[in-house]
Amino acid sequence: MTDFEQTRRLFHMPEGVIYLDGNSLGPLPLAAEGRVSAMMTEQWGAMLIRGWNDANWMAMPRRIGDRVGRLIGAPEGSVVMGDTLSIKVYQALASALDIAAERDPKRRVILSDNGNFPSDLYMAEGLIQTLDRGYELKVVDPEAVEAAIDETVAVTLLTEVDYRTGRLHDMAALTAMAHAAGALCVWDLAHSAGAIPVDLLGADADFAVGCTYKYLNGGPGAPAFIYVSPRHADRARPALSGWLGHERPFAFDLHYRPGDGVDRMRVGTPPILALAALDAALDAWEGVEMADVRKKSIALCDLFIAEVEQRCPDLVLGSPRDGTQRGSQVSFLHPEGYAIMQALIARGVIGDFRAPNAIRFGFTPLYIGEREVIAAVDILSDIMTNRLWDQPQFKKKALVT
Amino acid sequence: MTDFEQTRRLFHMPEGVIYLDGNSLGPLPLAAEGRVSAMMTEQWGAMLIRGWNDANWMAMPRRIGDRVGRLIGAPEGSVVMGDTLSIKVYQALASALDIAAERDPKRRVILSDNGNFPSDLYMAEGLIQTLDRGYELKVVDPEAVEAAIDETVAVTLLTEVDYRTGRLHDMAALTAMAHAAGALCVWDLAHSAGAIPVDLLGADADFAVGCTYKYLNGGPGAPAFIYVSPRHADRARPALSGWLGHERPFAFDLHYRPGDGVDRMRVGTPPILALAALDAALDAWEGVEMADVRKKSIALCDLFIAEVEQRCPDLVLGSPRDGTQRGSQVSFLHPEGYAIMQALIARGVIGDFRAPNAIRFGFTPLYIGEREVIAAVDILSDIMTNRLWDQPQFKKKALVT
Repeated sequence: MTDFEQTRRLFHMPEGVIYLDGNSLGPLPLAAEGRVSAMMTEQWGAMLIRGWNDANWMAMPRRIGDRVGRLIGAPEGSVVMGDTLSIKVYQALASALDIAAERDPKRRVILSDNGNFPSDLYMAEGLIQTLDRGYELKVVDPEAVEAAIDETVAVTLLTEVDYRTGRLHDMAALTAMAHAAGALCVWDLAHSAGAIPVDLLGADADFAVGCTYKYLNGGPGAPAFIYVSPRHADRARPALSGWLGHERPFAFDLHYRPGDGVDRMRVGTPPILALAALDAALDAWEGVEMADVRKKSIALCDLFIAEVEQRCPDLVLGSPRDGTQRGSQVSFLHPEGYAIMQALIARGVIGDFRAPNAIRFGFTPLYIGEREVIAAVDILSDIMTNRLWDQPQFKKKALVT
Repeated sequence: MTDFEQTRRLFHMPEGVIYLDGNSLGPLPLAAEGRVSAMMTEQWGAMLIRGWNDANWMAMPRRIGDRVGRLIGAPEGSVVMGDTLSIKVYQALASALDIAAERDPKRRVILSDNGNFPSDLYMAEGLIQTLDRGYELKVVDPEAVEAAIDETVAVTLLTEVDYRTGRLHDMAALTAMAHAAGALCVWDLAHSAGAIPVDLLGADADFAVGCTYKYLNGGPGAPAFIYVSPRHADRARPALSGWLGHERPFAFDLHYRPGDGVDRMRVGTPPILALAALDAALDAWEGVEMADVRKKSIALCDLFIAEVEQRCPDLVLGSPRDGTQRGSQVSFLHPEGYAIMQALIARGVIGDFRAPNAIRFGFTPLYIGEREVIAAVDILSDIMTNRLWDQPQFKKKALVT
């Protein structure tokens, strides 16, 4: 049994804040500041360049990749950290398209849906333009993905949990369907890793990517991860072929030769400060069972939905009602969603707004419990009942929403 | 006049170390640890997701880009931080090839030299394969670049300072020749930024990229930068088209539209911890004149060369003798270079080794002076005279050399 009272104590939570936005940026793990400080003074400061060997900096992307891998059903040695999620989408999609083209050069469709995070679609558009081989990005409704999987599809590019609604794709089923139709699958786990149990190997996913600043609490702009199925690891072409993905980076050869397995997905020099913070953040997952996280997450989301629907009748549920069909977040819709969220934040309840009309709340069992859910709804219902959102200062758009 | 006694006090230097590897990884700026700690506790910890607005995290890549820009002759708003140098090479080269193809679709040569850092060549190889339009990476000797600039060249991809030898390309002259021949220029400033005066605007460079963990002391894996000439900024196609390069990232549109100017070169979520460290590191450059840095750098390198040649006759100079033809580093060649460098490191003189036979020393005026140069040669000459390198423990190769 996971001890959530213990995990809660591992995070800093500011006084007066009810934080329901760990799905956007996880809170500061108490261990992270000390870990980064120690890295800076005892390693960078004292070892200088020798840190690459003496502090094993060069091994961090693989070592931490394995730590993330344990949370997403990836076998040891199949995940590596680095870059940002968008960059990793590019590499995964380029590799998958290459393998798909070898099998059947006629397929030209990259299938995605309009619940995918826009950056994934943008990176696909950029890759398609760079490739200039007639690929088409076909974007359908999430519910239409299944029907759209046919013999024209080279690769599916899907985010398991919809960032707006929390709606969950069935990774195992869609992957099996895509494979049966002769396509490869790239899965984006941005809202899955640390939120729900993921079984990449069991689902036979071809590639997966994700970020670590949401449920994994790695800090703003924390490094991304990429998973390559062991079936493809020695065939994948990384497209972004940087020196640290080379078979022998320090031979300084003039020609690229891909490294073993997932190592080839490394590109440039790894971000050691950020990896140190992430490493500390991942300590919170030691002894945590994803099944326990899932159970508590569904209970918290169900409680929130029930309370809001009872006490805030103007808000319309924008997420699946069935907890098994949802990630670890809940959205409600309202035309004045932006102002409502600003009013909530002014009262210390932090969620976020996703255009055009969704207020979004993340439930993160490691540090959020029923007490916070009830307290948040108390404030939300006050704001809705008394139209407290209807003030000019709550309608001024910030740079980042 | 730059006060180098004052800048020296801004860095942590471990007792007993003579650090001549700031061209590989700059030392810890004393301000960095506090700045990163404050960012973690006062911003990430206290503000949580609100830091993106309230602490202006979202503006950091541009704000810090301008700070770097002042050191490389880039006008305000023409430099943005993010990703790694390899990623930025890919974006710059892809953009330059696009513009070149618009002008003259027949040109198929990307011209580089074998003194370029291998990762630049690898990224070019990866891009060429992805483009699959018959581009050829032509790699000549550094001395042969000039003669190879002809009407077949679409883009030159050159590193201004050779990472092995410190040999300096004449950026202004080569850029002018390339432009006269109808080609565009991408300049890699990895060993230039903070090492020598650079005048990107004056040289009319098209694109430039660089890293910040060498002479700019941003820490291991610190973010890279990219410069786009104002002439191209609103035409360049970033290839890696991520959401933060979108015209309106938070509109969550389904289609990519490039942002204004250099903003389109942003890709994913910026690495805020690393940017905070870099920001603190750049404080050391306030009040520093690059002309003073250059003058002291040449003097230190000249002194080192003179002392080594006098006292270590077995070592062969691997760098240009003329200081104006050199960056801020000096290499000496010896078949046992690896063991010699290990013996030096064991005695506290830290430089590095570059295969096959170069021992490389960086001279960084902000925190290194004549005293260190003489002390380093004292130890080097002891090692050479008494063959102290000829011991098994100095011949065992480390992971990172």
